[in-house]
Amino acid sequence: MESMSGRVVVYGGRGALGTAIVTKFKESGWWVANVDMKASELADENILVEGDTWVQQEEHVCNSVGAALSGEKLDAVVCMAGGWAGGSPASKDFIKNSDLMWKSSVWPASISASLAAKHLKEGGMVVLPGAAPAVAGTPGMAGYGMAKAAVHQLTQSLACKGSGLPDNCLAAAILPVTLDTPMNRKWMAKADQSTWTPLEFVSSLLLEWAVGESRPQSGSLVKLVTEKGETSLVTV
Amino acid sequence: MESMSGRVVVYGGRGALGTAIVTKFKESGWWVANVDMKASELADENILVEGDTWVQQEEHVCNSVGAALSGEKLDAVVCMAGGWAGGSPASKDFIKNSDLMWKSSVWPASISASLAAKHLKEGGMVVLPGAAPAVAGTPGMAGYGMAKAAVHQLTQSLACKGSGLPDNCLAAAILPVTLDTPMNRKWMAKADQSTWTPLEFVSSLLLEWAVGESRPQSGSLVKLVTEKGETSLVTV
Repeated sequence: MESMSGRVVVYGGRGALGTAIVTKFKESGWWVANVDMKASELADENILVEGDTWVQQEEHVCNSVGAALSGEKLDAVVCMAGGWAGGSPASKDFIKNSDLMWKSSVWPASISASLAAKHLKEGGMVVLPGAAPAVAGTPGMAGYGMAKAAVHQLTQSLACKGSGLPDNCLAAAILPVTLDTPMNRKWMAKADQSTWTPLEFVSSLLLEWAVGESRPQSGSLVKLVTEKGETSLVTV
Repeated sequence: MESMSGRVVVYGGRGALGTAIVTKFKESGWWVANVDMKASELADENILVEGDTWVQQEEHVCNSVGAALSGEKLDAVVCMAGGWAGGSPASKDFIKNSDLMWKSSVWPASISASLAAKHLKEGGMVVLPGAAPAVAGTPGMAGYGMAKAAVHQLTQSLACKGSGLPDNCLAAAILPVTLDTPMNRKWMAKADQSTWTPLEFVSSLLLEWAVGESRPQSGSLVKLVTEKGETSLVTV
């Protein structure tokens, strides 16, 4: 067994899902860099997001990851940063929340795409955070839907020849319906939790893909469908 | 014949396509408000975009349109504002251009959605500016693709129950491949211009939909396919 199984950047490694992913990769002997607003005690490196603009954040994150790698390449970039805010186009908060969703979802996903183009090795992987509802209209959460639709399309761009990724990389998005997180348990206590996807399922899936097993076709939007506690993958 | 055929806001009414649309509606006796960075001499009202943030621009535009309407309702909101910038995720300009595309395409489209929810009458119409390539990956223009994918998804949201539009409205996006504009003639002089869509086709189509003729299903993304100078509509 190698002492170093691989190198991964987890963007959003302090969220509930991010923490599960950092933990899973660490348990498997990976070098893990966390990019987030707060440090993770589990990660080998922490890169705290700085800057008020999209360009400033990208420069800071890319320079910091480059310095942490010291010339090494990454096996995987996993972005799970995001947030949620509702509002139809008729809502007084529509634009404010669209702005929030863009900054919390599309900025991290596109900076992760930039990291992938700069630092992935051949055969590496970049996985972005999609959302199952956003493959159609989302009238009650219009800003969230726009941001996630952009992430889906970016995933498809990354999978195309000419994206700048090295050969044989996987670019994919996972599209959860509802994740089984402490926040969702708190705010949706009465929902049918047998349809919620366990974080352990997601972290195991990402590790599997990272080591080259059971990868979907590059460019895939992979919906996570959980029924009676069992999760299956549906490419949309 | 009525002296006032209808009321339309054209967002981006000073661009090449916008000017063609303002002209067409004026010729048919409509009241036309132009929202743009510069005034149109053809329009009845001009609302110049102000504000550095998405929220500021929305507040200014929505308040100004509300004042110009003096309690009347709109028959149509047509947004044709946008821009173009290339760059793969590996490009040094990827994030800078993604930011530009977001501000030039998604801000106007979402503010137009907001205008539509506030001011359209029952049976009205809102049309947003999509792009044919962005229904798949666009590796050489990744930021442009994300912005247009967001506009496509917003169109679908607007068509759903719960979007806040009045009953029987049409929400659609038109997805040109290449428009026959002076700029495109200048920069792509050697391209096959028999596949370029004439602005007259687009302005006539929008007027037709505006008066309730030959409307596509709400939520449609309508690709404009021009071959040998003939344009057909393909819903994607």
